[in-house]
Amino acid sequence: MSSQTASTPGCPIDGLLQIVGDRWSLLILRDAFYGVRRFDGFQQHLGISKKILAQRLRSLTEAGIFNRVMYQERPQRFEYRLAARGLDTFPVLLSMSRWGTRWLSEPGKEWLQLRHTGCGEIIEAQLVCSHCGERLTPARVKPLAGPGAESKDIESLARAIRKTSS
Amino acid sequence: MSSQTASTPGCPIDGLLQIVGDRWSLLILRDAFYGVRRFDGFQQHLGISKKILAQRLRSLTEAGIFNRVMYQERPQRFEYRLAARGLDTFPVLLSMSRWGTRWLSEPGKEWLQLRHTGCGEIIEAQLVCSHCGERLTPARVKPLAGPGAESKDIESLARAIRKTSS
Repeated sequence: MSSQTASTPGCPIDGLLQIVGDRWSLLILRDAFYGVRRFDGFQQHLGISKKILAQRLRSLTEAGIFNRVMYQERPQRFEYRLAARGLDTFPVLLSMSRWGTRWLSEPGKEWLQLRHTGCGEIIEAQLVCSHCGERLTPARVKPLAGPGAESKDIESLARAIRKTSS
Repeated sequence: MSSQTASTPGCPIDGLLQIVGDRWSLLILRDAFYGVRRFDGFQQHLGISKKILAQRLRSLTEAGIFNRVMYQERPQRFEYRLAARGLDTFPVLLSMSRWGTRWLSEPGKEWLQLRHTGCGEIIEAQLVCSHCGERLTPARVKPLAGPGAESKDIESLARAIRKTSS
């Protein structure tokens, strides 16, 4: 991340990006969903430097994405388990995986497949409306400035949102 | 992005991150969904340097996320419209927005709200199974090494995937 400046304070997307908005953090999260929990496991899968990995795990733990849990007393060893906030990034990772599979791999040569144990099928993640269940498309989702969007700082973006949604 | 090295060639998540895996690119995409199309509009909303913005717009255009379209002939002026690949990142952005709203804003003080014009309600994006429609949770989605996951390079991650899913 070249800068931590909040260009749009309050924006939920920017808020998430300030926590996991770089490739390494998101790859660490991906591996956590694959079941990787230990420093050495992340390091081995990612080929990341120990220094960068330690820094990312520390900041992801501070942000509440991971719980750092002791799994051995002598010598003390810790592992990183997805906390509630971390587990709840699942839709983000799943949506990324869907996009990458759809646009970057040839049909029949997918690198990753997802099986839903509920129905047993190889599936794709689909985004639907929490109210009516219809599939969500950009044309039918209108962003609105919410009740918390009052500060001067976000006025210009809020205007852009209102303009788009009118 | 500190490095463009593909730690896991073929991985759809890493594939996406190599294209949009930095905060600025994702904020540019966000603004594009708000309806921003022109260089000056992005620059004004993001407070980003012209040099970085030009570089990001160029690489997002090269990756097929944006179409660069002339909107004025004399002098020539171009705008950036979301191409099919770009529009299809909508679930990623929407999932990020959901997470940020849920974990970073107080109830009743949301910065952003989404109205689904299909049903007219203020909604949340929900991720469901494309086959049976059930809501997807980490515990019920098993990643499997797909037919394209054969190269030596991804052997270790593919092993981790199989181990997790067994």
